Formats: sequence, structure tokens, C-alpha cells
Amino acid sequence: MTATVDARRTLHVDLGERSYPIHIDTGLIGRADALTPYLAGQQVMVITNETIAPLYLDKLCASLPDDVEVRTLVLPDGEQYKTIEHVSRIWDALLEAGFNRRCTLVALGGGVIGDMVGYAAASYQRGVAFIQVPTTLLSQVDSSVGGKTGVNHPLGKNMIGAFWQPKAVLVDIESLKSLPRRELSAGLAEVVKYGFIRDEAFLSWLETNMSALLDVTPDVIAEAIARSCQIKADIVAEDETEQGVRALLNLGHTFGHAIEAHQGYGNWLHGEAVGTGMAMAATLSKQLGWIDEAMLARSLAVIERAGLPLTAPANMSSEDFLTRMRLDKKNIDAKLRLVLLNSLGDACVSDATPMSVLQALLDDYPRR
Amino acid sequence: MTATVDARRTLHVDLGERSYPIHIDTGLIGRADALTPYLAGQQVMVITNETIAPLYLDKLCASLPDDVEVRTLVLPDGEQYKTIEHVSRIWDALLEAGFNRRCTLVALGGGVIGDMVGYAAASYQRGVAFIQVPTTLLSQVDSSVGGKTGVNHPLGKNMIGAFWQPKAVLVDIESLKSLPRRELSAGLAEVVKYGFIRDEAFLSWLETNMSALLDVTPDVIAEAIARSCQIKADIVAEDETEQGVRALLNLGHTFGHAIEAHQGYGNWLHGEAVGTGMAMAATLSKQLGWIDEAMLARSLAVIERAGLPLTAPANMSSEDFLTRMRLDKKNIDAKLRLVLLNSLGDACVSDATPMSVLQALLDDYPRR
Repeated sequence: MTATVDARRTLHVDLGERSYPIHIDTGLIGRADALTPYLAGQQVMVITNETIAPLYLDKLCASLPDDVEVRTLVLPDGEQYKTIEHVSRIWDALLEAGFNRRCTLVALGGGVIGDMVGYAAASYQRGVAFIQVPTTLLSQVDSSVGGKTGVNHPLGKNMIGAFWQPKAVLVDIESLKSLPRRELSAGLAEVVKYGFIRDEAFLSWLETNMSALLDVTPDVIAEAIARSCQIKADIVAEDETEQGVRALLNLGHTFGHAIEAHQGYGNWLHGEAVGTGMAMAATLSKQLGWIDEAMLARSLAVIERAGLPLTAPANMSSEDFLTRMRLDKKNIDAKLRLVLLNSLGDACVSDATPMSVLQALLDDYPRR
Repeated sequence: MTATVDARRTLHVDLGERSYPIHIDTGLIGRADALTPYLAGQQVMVITNETIAPLYLDKLCASLPDDVEVRTLVLPDGEQYKTIEHVSRIWDALLEAGFNRRCTLVALGGGVIGDMVGYAAASYQRGVAFIQVPTTLLSQVDSSVGGKTGVNHPLGKNMIGAFWQPKAVLVDIESLKSLPRRELSAGLAEVVKYGFIRDEAFLSWLETNMSALLDVTPDVIAEAIARSCQIKADIVAEDETEQGVRALLNLGHTFGHAIEAHQGYGNWLHGEAVGTGMAMAATLSKQLGWIDEAMLARSLAVIERAGLPLTAPANMSSEDFLTRMRLDKKNIDAKLRLVLLNSLGDACVSDATPMSVLQALLDDYPRR
């Protein structure tokens, strides 16, 4: 795998008539030819949050053709606002503007904006077009690819939503320059995950390039995003609605979602919770004898070097974990299903973890 | 076309891997073999309303196997409750019960229950199974077939929703015996509509059998339901997501939705508004010279014989109509699209009605 000085890359997510491109480049926001080819009609609503609006909203709107009716909506920033009430605000704005079935929604922001705008688009007049313009590393490598949209519920994360594919994903890596270091690390959690579940060579490349990634070196970060999106796109193309292999993308997420829900959405970043969740999944894989001590040590090291936490919250008991994990969408009937590591670069879904082993892991796992 | 003494009929809606059967018979609710073949797993939630619950809820639940976990939820009865807030109550109940992705929702009731439960199923954990058990004529011949689900918004009917197909539709025509006469007529509006848009012979058959239909004669009503569902199923199979021919099913609905929204949902029944809407569409078709005076007279007579209103609300101005009609989902960009009659049994979608002709129709149309 080689990194080039050119940051420009294009991938294709292959889903038959729902296929779409992912364009990666510097300076895409504001380029006149970036959004226009993907508009469904003459009505466009750009939805963003209070953090992103002052940085990119005017620039993006100015890039749209003069004959397009452009509206904007600015929502509060944070996972705690990813609710059906905030999606309803999008619907209200669309109806107040008299927008019809051929309108296009543009999601300008991180995963929260992308998930909410995608679900708003899936349900408005039973489905309209939308375009993802993800501005965080996490959303660029994960939530903007694959068509999972939705909102949280007090009893569980992403419990309400739809599978709904965008018309295009535009990744402007310049937007990462304004991203706080903590959120950059949170995004790297998902990048590292792709190495763990599917690609040992990519994991090695990440170990070599971690400093350049944390410095947002354009060609290195573009390569990491492209490689991550390609792995995700391949898996999504195999299994769009998560009947099988797509569940592997949930490595670290069963533990991680439990942490996020227990701590209150927005207190732990999603990627931070996934970082700890992957450390827990690797530790459990070691305790089941699936990976050896050296693999576990390497796993924990790469998570830590990405700037992510390894330890679980001090105020979270084993029962707190189990209560939340029982609500996980992967579970079938009463069985708890976990994504575990056969080795580095090879994950699997298992519902056969003995409860005693899981209980021991949760009881003994380090807290802070 | 002959009516038999046997009310039992089965149709198939052909949508590839989303295909499903429509079973029509007397006494289906409570029959042990009716629901069970279509359950996705061991968790079932039956959702109904306060009117239907005392009549059929226990009977339906008792027909489910002992090893199934059955929950029930009773919502208030009426179009004014078809809101995102009431769909949220379904999601709350599912999460409180710990229901997973392999649960099955059963919609026991009329179109309001069917639309809300279908949308709740489409969005719960990004999509779970549901079964329609429609108990009104309107829902048996219309809303339970074709996968349109959703809720109303203060600014427009069915503005929020999804295309989501049931696993099966079970039509128990015994449930029509408890249906008020006014709601029976409202259901006949859609039955008559199928004759208008696609099948002149069926329209003649309806004219001959209208008294038996209003008396709920089992074999006659079963035949009318089966024929209606078949026409709708054929159209839906051609055009599942309403890109073309499916729009014909909206005959009378552009005017009708405007009446319902203006009068407040629940005051005019949907079928009543569609009855007047079809009378208005027929009158406009006559004024455009597409049908002659005799065809118009025959159209108005069959609507009236079904027990439906021909006149528009006295308190509704032409501008009230136009304001609502501009929000119609069929419209593309700024053009108003209407379903009109080429002749009886042959409808078309047109965006070419001169505004002056439409304005004259609205100004001159009888009110009461």
C-alpha cells in the first residue's frame, strides 16, 4: 500500500440502482461541480449544526447554482440532540418551505447530522434524495457510508431509523483541520476497526503512519479514509441490511453502545466508547483462547496510540453493561451476540460466549 | 364476473422478495392458522385502538401459539391521532418490552392503525416484520395493500412515512358487521375508485350490486374486496414507489386531502373526502371535454348511491383548496398534478390543466 501526494480519490458503493460515489479531496466544500450533479430537483435544504454552520455553511450554499431554491437549517451540536424531536424540526422546515418529493437534503456535519438528515430524507414524503458532506473523520469513514440512518431513544442508541442510501458522499479533508484532536482520535477508532476485522496489512500501515494521521497529513489521511470506506463499502455491498457479514462492523460496538447509553449520550464520544469496546472485545477473545497474548498487546497498543481510552467507566457495573447489551440490535431472541477476533484482521460474530466468561470479563475489566 | 356463496379468496401481491398474500374470509380473526405462519420470531406486539380492542383483541391474541411472547398496545381511535407522537408510543412500548429485530407487529384496526403500525415497523431498529389485520372496508381495499405507511403532519396528510410491505394481510369480513354505515360508505369510495380508474366492467358490477354491498352480503362484499385488492396489487406491482402509474390510485385524493386537512383530520372521513374529490375530478374532466355529460352523470350517481357526499364544505374557499393542493406529494417542482378521467375505467395523470379552468371549477363547485 502506497500513499501518494495527491489527496483525490473516488470510490463506488455498489448497490444496484442505489449505487453511489464517494469523492475524497481537499477543498470539495465550495467547489461548484461537487454537489450539483447529485441534486434531484430545484429545491435544496442544507442541514448543519451550530459548530459547523459558521465554518462552512455559506461556502457550501454559494457553490449551488442560481436557479436552485436553497434553504438552511441549523440544529444544536451533539449526540444528545440525535432524537426524533430534532428530526421533526427538519420535517417542519421542509413542509413550511413547501418542499416536494424531488427536493434534496444536504447533511453538512458529523455523524449526528448525517444520521438525522438521512432518516429525515428516508421518511419525508416516504423518501427523498440526500447527499452526505461529512466534516468529521468518524463520519467520513463510517456513518456516511452504508445507508444506516436514524436517531437514539432513551432506551437505546440508533433504535429508530431506516436503511436509506445517499446520492453521493463528498469528503473534504480540509474540514479535518478544524476538528478537535479528541474527535480525530474518535474517528481513528473506526479506522483501526477496519484493520482489526478485515485487513491485517492495513492495521500494520496504520501502526506505521499513526503520527502522520494524528497530524492530519493530507495524503496519509486521504489514504486512510479511502481504505476505510472501501472496506466498509465492500461489506455493505455484500450485506446491505445486516443479515450477516455486516455485523462485523460492530466490533467493539456492543460494549461501546452500553458505555455511551449508560454515561449519557455526548459525554463519551462514540469513537472513544468503541475504542474501549474494542479493547474489551480483544481481551475477551484472548480469554476465550482465540488470540494470543502478543496479539492482545498489539491490539491494545494501536488503540492507545490512536489516542483512545482502554479502560471502562468507574461508575459502570457488570450489570449495567449486561442490561444495555441485552438490548443490542444484533441479538436474536434471547441470545447475546458479540463480534470477536479470530486473529488480527479476522473477526467473527458469535453467540456462544459462556455467560460465566463474559461475567468474569466484565467483573475484572479495569475501570477508571 | 360472478359472485359465489363462498367468501374465501387469496390474492398475491407480487413484489419479488417482498411479495405477500392477502387472505380474505369470514372468521379469520381467532383462527389459529391465520397469523402464525407469518411471524418472524417469538415476540409479537398487537397494536389496536380503543374501539376495536373490546371487539377483537382477546380473540386475536388467543389464536397465537403458547410459546410466543405477546404484548398489546391500545391507542386512541381517529385520524387526528395519526401522528409521530403516537408512533413514538409504539416504539416506547417495543423498547420497554425489550423487543428485538425479529419481533412482529400486528396492526389490528382501520387505516390509521395500519399506517401507524406499518411506519413504526419500518423504523423500529431500521425495519421489522408486520402483519395487517384490517377491520374497516377502507383499510381492507386500500391502505392495507401496497406498503404505504406513515403519519400526518399539521401541514399535510401522510407527509411522513415509508414504503414498507407487510408479511401478510388478513381480511376478516365478519369485522365489517360491526362497522358503522358511514364508514362502510367511506370504504366504498375506494372500491368505486378502482372501477373509475381501471375497470369499467367492475364499475357496472358495483352499480348492480350496490344494495348488497351496503347490506354487507358476505359473498358480494368479499368479491368487491378481492377485485379491489387485485387492481391495487397489479398497480403496486407495476410501480411500487409511485414513479408513474401508481399515481392513478390518487383519483379524487388531491381535492380530498385538501378537504380533510382544511376541515381537520377526523371530521370528514377520508372516504367521504375522496367521494367529493372524485366528483370534483369527474366534473373537471367534463369541463376539459374529456368525458361527456352522460359519463359525468353516471359518475356522480354511483358516488351518491354509495352513500357519499358530492358537495364541498361551505367554509372552504377556492384559495383554501389551492393552498393545500400545492403541497400534494404528486406535484413535481411547481406544477400541480391531477388524476383525471379519459373515460369511465380509464384515468390519467395530468399537469396541464389550465389554472383558469381549475380556478373556475373551484369557484363554481357546489358547497353545502
